[in-house]
Amino acid sequence: MDSQTYLNREQDRFIAELMDFVRIPSVSAKPENIPDVLDAAHWVARRLTQAGAEHAEVMPTAGHPVVLADWLHAGPDKPTILIYGHFDVQPAEPFDLWTSPPFQPEIRDGRLWGRGASDDKGGMLIPILACEALLQTTGKLPVNVRFFFEGQEEIGSPDLPPFVAAHAERLKADMIFSADGLQWAPGQPQIVQALKGLVSLEIVVRGPRSDQHSGMVGGGIANPALALAQILASLRREDGLITVEGFYDDVIPLSPEARADIARIPFKDADLLAETGAPATWTEPGYTAAEGIFARPTLDVNGLTSGWQGAGTKTVLPAEARAKITCRLVAAQNPERIFEAIQAHVARHTPPGVTVEVLRNPGRADPFLVPAGHNASAIAAQVLEDIYATKPLHTRVGGSIPVMTTLLDTLGVHAVMFGFSHGDENLHAPDEFFRLDEFRRGQTAYVRLLERLGD
Amino acid sequence: MDSQTYLNREQDRFIAELMDFVRIPSVSAKPENIPDVLDAAHWVARRLTQAGAEHAEVMPTAGHPVVLADWLHAGPDKPTILIYGHFDVQPAEPFDLWTSPPFQPEIRDGRLWGRGASDDKGGMLIPILACEALLQTTGKLPVNVRFFFEGQEEIGSPDLPPFVAAHAERLKADMIFSADGLQWAPGQPQIVQALKGLVSLEIVVRGPRSDQHSGMVGGGIANPALALAQILASLRREDGLITVEGFYDDVIPLSPEARADIARIPFKDADLLAETGAPATWTEPGYTAAEGIFARPTLDVNGLTSGWQGAGTKTVLPAEARAKITCRLVAAQNPERIFEAIQAHVARHTPPGVTVEVLRNPGRADPFLVPAGHNASAIAAQVLEDIYATKPLHTRVGGSIPVMTTLLDTLGVHAVMFGFSHGDENLHAPDEFFRLDEFRRGQTAYVRLLERLGD
Repeated sequence: MDSQTYLNREQDRFIAELMDFVRIPSVSAKPENIPDVLDAAHWVARRLTQAGAEHAEVMPTAGHPVVLADWLHAGPDKPTILIYGHFDVQPAEPFDLWTSPPFQPEIRDGRLWGRGASDDKGGMLIPILACEALLQTTGKLPVNVRFFFEGQEEIGSPDLPPFVAAHAERLKADMIFSADGLQWAPGQPQIVQALKGLVSLEIVVRGPRSDQHSGMVGGGIANPALALAQILASLRREDGLITVEGFYDDVIPLSPEARADIARIPFKDADLLAETGAPATWTEPGYTAAEGIFARPTLDVNGLTSGWQGAGTKTVLPAEARAKITCRLVAAQNPERIFEAIQAHVARHTPPGVTVEVLRNPGRADPFLVPAGHNASAIAAQVLEDIYATKPLHTRVGGSIPVMTTLLDTLGVHAVMFGFSHGDENLHAPDEFFRLDEFRRGQTAYVRLLERLGD
Repeated sequence: MDSQTYLNREQDRFIAELMDFVRIPSVSAKPENIPDVLDAAHWVARRLTQAGAEHAEVMPTAGHPVVLADWLHAGPDKPTILIYGHFDVQPAEPFDLWTSPPFQPEIRDGRLWGRGASDDKGGMLIPILACEALLQTTGKLPVNVRFFFEGQEEIGSPDLPPFVAAHAERLKADMIFSADGLQWAPGQPQIVQALKGLVSLEIVVRGPRSDQHSGMVGGGIANPALALAQILASLRREDGLITVEGFYDDVIPLSPEARADIARIPFKDADLLAETGAPATWTEPGYTAAEGIFARPTLDVNGLTSGWQGAGTKTVLPAEARAKITCRLVAAQNPERIFEAIQAHVARHTPPGVTVEVLRNPGRADPFLVPAGHNASAIAAQVLEDIYATKPLHTRVGGSIPVMTTLLDTLGVHAVMFGFSHGDENLHAPDEFFRLDEFRRGQTAYVRLLERLGD
């Protein structure tokens, strides 16, 4: 039996296993789900062993655990690859917007619906199944394989840098492939050239020590909510230009070639507006919306909190106002330098009558840009072209996968995104789903990738 | 027995009655307390009858009820006065900041602690007790008295204008005295020359139809929270000047005499900072903090809501951002004109990529300014000078009592604030209290007021 026959024969079992996996509510952001993330780790370790991987182990970090395993019997003349994915998921709130409950997966319309089905439980199961098929049908893998699955990607992988540094020997690889990744669209593969970095912070403006009666003190002391608005307005102009001093200093300008690659992407502004419901596109002056999303740094306010938030009127002058902010960074911006630039900007732009603090929030990633002529990317592109019968687009992603830069920093290897999710699958939103035909196609793709890497 | 002896003899009973009154959680802002506001109305009607008032009646409105009563046997040659107060209270949240529970009143340090003790249950009980003392000891009142107590002052008295219009005959009076009012400080009386008006609104900025992943669309569509900040920053400068076009058009400039009256008020910036904990005063350029609080219009943000408000980081681009705003108005500003000015300003200053709506919130008051040479004010000032042995200050109040302007509009009479609360009594905040010696002094003051008005 060849590996494809094996995959076809076992597909129903694989889908049932993915449903079991999705049933574990491994939400890394919520303290009450800590045991569930651990359960998911053990589920992964068991599944790796069942597939024929060796040394499968749930390993502790300061936070959620990591699962490592390997199969290293291809021989010293064969490359060693590291396959990455994550078994934690985003919070599922608001629950009432889900058609079926997020942790009770259902199959409808050839799709598996549930939190994490696409991001990244379906994705990270794919290479495990590909390896099982090769081991069951040929007794070996074409290359040496290490597996590295983590449980804290959705909270920014805060404990991964020390873990990777401490276990660099066990993670050492010639190439890295991430099973957490997207194709451009069903039928249209992509090779991701870049990921954005991330820095997360909170601006806290304080005035009186408690909420005050606006009729008793209004007009005599400053309003922290208004002061916060003035500070935020100073960060970015209405036309989209970020006005934090020094923000763009380290940005590598987009080359004509990079802009041409982005222009080839079948990204339509009209689709963006239809999918989001936004009334218009909005980006930095001089750039297209596609360039803004894929290749330019951002500064977004993620949340505002101050004073009275209930119905109707409460005439308070609030004690405090808070804004959560994340910046998506591009090469070669540095999260710490950007944080410091914002902190200094806010200090310079603090209105009179209030005090302001700029706090760092969890979540950090360096931007990631694959160098030209990168070998693993070229091989992956060839496999995708074979399977999809069309050339992959060269794209960039607005999101961040902090561990990619951690692996680059520690192991010196640029990872290749080799995942089979799609951007329309409600990642991080209600009604997340995974396409089962892409789940199957991904298994073939990983088999071919391993075979070609072994040639 | 004279009325003072009666008041002294009955004081313990009066305090126990006030505690009973405070136990009723008559929070007008909360739907679940509708029955409690009605209970409080019946409590008031019973207490009026017990005091000797006639025709005590709980009267319906579209919202919370009104209580009317009268005693009209002083004769046609005597003036008729209307006494106003309110039996509803502010919400008591946050409960955990109260030393004793808000609706389980306690006496400590000569003060009665509980929600509404000062604003306005203690205040509105005072004239009832004064009338009881006169009726019990002399068998009559020196003037004809109407009582008008309402249950929706803390939500801006939305149903009072039609009620007052419909019952103008029953409210008709030569003078009006409000038992909802403050003295400057213990030992320092005041005559209030002006109250501010109020307009309440909400700015709603909308972008995508639901919260989006900031890595998927950030940089391509506008951020409603940032757009809201830009709009708010356009309303008022960092130096305090309100920049809404037309905002100041109807403001009657402060005369040198009015500024001199304000300068005589023993208001110290240092006290404002010590009491509120604000780091500095902040007011319109060219005005003192006292002028800003007492006599200049304000624009305050009361609350901000958008996106992720939990702990840590959630990388959303929010669908919506909201700001609640109230403006305190001075003569001769008009709430509707100010609302329209802000609405037009926001329309002109809406950043690209979002839609904006400006909604009116409950709560409306015209500003109130007592004319020079007002007879009732002069008599009240003389009574206060007799009782306190010091001249009352001529002050203005930053707060609003919407019914004052409703009474002025419908009955053509400027009310006199004749209440015995103080600004430090945590009105609208945890640990509200009322001074029991001022409760007693207020009773004497109302007896003297009625006697002097009858002369």
